Amino acid sequence: MLTLYSMQSSGNSYKVRMLLARLAQPYHLVEIDRFKGENRTPEYLAINPDGRLPALQLEDGRMLAESNAILVYLAEGTPWLPEDRFEYAETLRWMFFEQHSHEPAIAEARFWLRFVRGGRELRTHEIDQWMENGYAALALMEQHLATQDYFVGGRETVADLALYAHTHVAHEADFDLSGFPAIGRWIARIAGNSAHISIDKIHPSATFGLSPIRGSTAP
Amino acid sequence: MLTLYSMQSSGNSYKVRMLLARLAQPYHLVEIDRFKGENRTPEYLAINPDGRLPALQLEDGRMLAESNAILVYLAEGTPWLPEDRFEYAETLRWMFFEQHSHEPAIAEARFWLRFVRGGRELRTHEIDQWMENGYAALALMEQHLATQDYFVGGRETVADLALYAHTHVAHEADFDLSGFPAIGRWIARIAGNSAHISIDKIHPSATFGLSPIRGSTAP
Repeated sequence: MLTLYSMQSSGNSYKVRMLLARLAQPYHLVEIDRFKGENRTPEYLAINPDGRLPALQLEDGRMLAESNAILVYLAEGTPWLPEDRFEYAETLRWMFFEQHSHEPAIAEARFWLRFVRGGRELRTHEIDQWMENGYAALALMEQHLATQDYFVGGRETVADLALYAHTHVAHEADFDLSGFPAIGRWIARIAGNSAHISIDKIHPSATFGLSPIRGSTAP
Repeated sequence: MLTLYSMQSSGNSYKVRMLLARLAQPYHLVEIDRFKGENRTPEYLAINPDGRLPALQLEDGRMLAESNAILVYLAEGTPWLPEDRFEYAETLRWMFFEQHSHEPAIAEARFWLRFVRGGRELRTHEIDQWMENGYAALALMEQHLATQDYFVGGRETVADLALYAHTHVAHEADFDLSGFPAIGRWIARIAGNSAHISIDKIHPSATFGLSPIRGSTAP
C-alpha cells in the first residue's frame, strides 16, 4: 500500500490526491498540518528531509518528494502520461512551467492572503510581484488553451492536473479569472471528469483515512 | 539538425549545451541576448510564446520550451536518464526541486548582482529572501551529496547537469560555498567529465556557430 503524506488545503498535495482518485488507486493517507509545524518535526524530517508536502512512500519504504515527480511516477503506464516522445516532453514542459512560473506566484499569494492573518500587510511588496507573475502565467495558459481543450495531446494528462491544482483556487489569491475564458472552460472540463474530487474532499480510495504520523501504516 | 535558442551567460541555456556536448550531438545554435530584449521581439515570441530561454526546435519545426524538459527529451535512451522507474522519478524530483527551490533563488540573485548595474540596491529585500532560500537549497544538496557522489543512482544524470548549471556560479550571486564541502567535490566531479564544457565556451559540436534569429538555420 502506498502512503501519501499530504496536507488537505495544499494544492501540491491535492494534485496527487486528484490523480490517485482518477486511477482508483487505494492508498494510506497521513495528514500533516504545516500550520501546526508538523512538517518540521524530527519524525517528518526523517521521512522527507526537505520538510515539504506532499511525499509518497512506496511499499518498500522508499520515499519520493516533489508533487510533479510523484505525478509522473504514479501516471507511468496510464493514459495520464503520453507515450509519444514529444508529447511526453511537452507534458514535462508544462509541469516545469507550473513549478517555476505558476505555483511560486499563485500558491504563495494564496497562502498569505487566505491562510495567514494579516498576510496582506506582512507581504505587500511580494504580493504585487506574485500578482504580476501569476497573471503572466495565466496569460500563457489562456493563449495555449484558446485553441486546445487540454495542455497536451487533446486529452487530460498530469500536466492538466498539475496546473489545475492552484489555478482553480486562484481566486482565493485575489486573481480575477473572468478575463481568461479559455481557462474557465478548461477548469470546468477537468472538474467534470467523473472521477474528480474537490480539494476539500478525502479521496474515497484512501481506505485507511487519516492517521497520525507516528501511527502504524499497516491496515 | 536541432536548433537551440540560447543565451551564453544563462545557466538554464547552459544546461542544454552541457548535455549536447556530452552527447556529442551536433546542433545549430542561435544566440538570443536577453539584455538587448531579443527574447521579446515578435520574431522570437512567434518561436517561443513565453519569451524564455532556452528553447529547442526539432528538425520538423516543433518547439520545446523549459530547460529541464529539453534535458529529458534529449537524454532519452542515453545513460543520462535512468531507466529504473524509481531512479527516473528521483531524477525528476531533483529537477523539479531545481526549478522550484534552487534556480529562482540563485539564478535571480546572480542576475541582479552580476549583470544589472545597481541591482543590489534595486532589489535589497528580494536579495535577502533569495539568499535565505538559496542557502536552504544548498543545504539540502549538501546533505544528499554527503553520502552520494551524484544525485541519483551513483552516476551522472540530467539531475546533476540541471543542478550544476547555477550551483557552480553561485559565488557570482554572493553565495559562499566554503561551508558545503560535498557540493564542492561534486562540482569538481561534474567539471571533470572529459566532455565537459564551461559556461563561457561554445559547444564544439555546434557546427554552424552563431547566427541571427532571422537567419536561415540550414547548413
